[in-house]
Amino acid sequence: MRIALCGGTGDIGEGLALRWARDSPHEVIIGSRDPERARTKAAEYEEELASRGVEVSINGFANEMAADRADVVVLSVPAYHLADTIEAIADRIDSDTTLVSPAVGMKRDDAGFHYNRPSGGSVVELAANAAPDDVPVIGAFHNLAAGTLANLDVTFELDTIVLGDDADAKGIVMSLAADIDGLRALDGGGIANAAEVEGITPLLINIAMNNEELHDLGVVFR
Amino acid sequence: MRIALCGGTGDIGEGLALRWARDSPHEVIIGSRDPERARTKAAEYEEELASRGVEVSINGFANEMAADRADVVVLSVPAYHLADTIEAIADRIDSDTTLVSPAVGMKRDDAGFHYNRPSGGSVVELAANAAPDDVPVIGAFHNLAAGTLANLDVTFELDTIVLGDDADAKGIVMSLAADIDGLRALDGGGIANAAEVEGITPLLINIAMNNEELHDLGVVFR
Repeated sequence: MRIALCGGTGDIGEGLALRWARDSPHEVIIGSRDPERARTKAAEYEEELASRGVEVSINGFANEMAADRADVVVLSVPAYHLADTIEAIADRIDSDTTLVSPAVGMKRDDAGFHYNRPSGGSVVELAANAAPDDVPVIGAFHNLAAGTLANLDVTFELDTIVLGDDADAKGIVMSLAADIDGLRALDGGGIANAAEVEGITPLLINIAMNNEELHDLGVVFR
Repeated sequence: MRIALCGGTGDIGEGLALRWARDSPHEVIIGSRDPERARTKAAEYEEELASRGVEVSINGFANEMAADRADVVVLSVPAYHLADTIEAIADRIDSDTTLVSPAVGMKRDDAGFHYNRPSGGSVVELAANAAPDDVPVIGAFHNLAAGTLANLDVTFELDTIVLGDDADAKGIVMSLAADIDGLRALDGGGIANAAEVEGITPLLINIAMNNEELHDLGVVFR
């Protein structure tokens, strides 16, 4: 399977790219609005993996080109860039492409971080509304700390909740999630259930801010 | 310390009563709108504990009387009974009483359960608005399954997030939470951060509904 990480030059995209490249047989490609930046970061990821004995090829492209080549497109961009990223790739994806939304909108005040729930219900539902009608949109990878994911020295045992209305596409993403060592994929039901999942991300930051020795947190359900 | 569980005859109240009575030195009293029902359940809890070799005295009262005698009052009632329960006990509590809100409002549709966020921001904030101004209100015990808690055969390693704007009151509740075997208390910051915590409860049900062999779930942050 070929996975494109649009916005794969930073935050959660970097960690997913590194871990899929290391832990799975899937081909990882990096997308960015700036293709030169995508190529630079892809080369950095290759180098990071090679230094650990993992020889893989990771290529970088403009987001449109990355999406065009992919079976699965992960929208690893901030929530406020979601709609324009989808718009940019819309004519390169179709019903055979699975779109994955891990983004969360947050706002901060004196008390801490809060879930900035979009009027559409959730960021995943916003993505589904922005995507072409025949393209399945799946929510996943919300509650993972970018720092944990991108540091390959860190091992973890964490959960990610996968949300989707298209059973096949959801199955693909659950399988991709489980391909990452230490990550368990849980079925969260349809995308109408996404808000409560997205809301955990600011909570993880609040817990880290208020409790010593807890940082870069993830979540486990048991 | 004396802990009153208003609405302690069912749901989460039962499990908290049994576990505090078993695991801590604190005195547990059961409140109900119906004092006869409170006495009956209190006697049942005593019996359940005695059958496990734990000899403690648990008394039942009308909610007002229970609150009047307590250092900490846990509002273990459904969210829609929160305001009238607080109204009933308002002249029996003061700045020396810590009020604890574990309730979550939920609604259900075809996709699953959803957090029914009150206009006040969260149920904890609703409780704070309904309580007398000088009474500190703390959020805690939201994401625990009643069935897990009430079955003393079940051991667990779970987290509960404690929210509050009064540091002393929050410290008391964090300590009470940690008194329960297997429960870790995490500081979630102020009550303005409560919505994201309350929102996990419907998510726990959605995960249980969509994943085989997962039920009565709780949460761990790591």
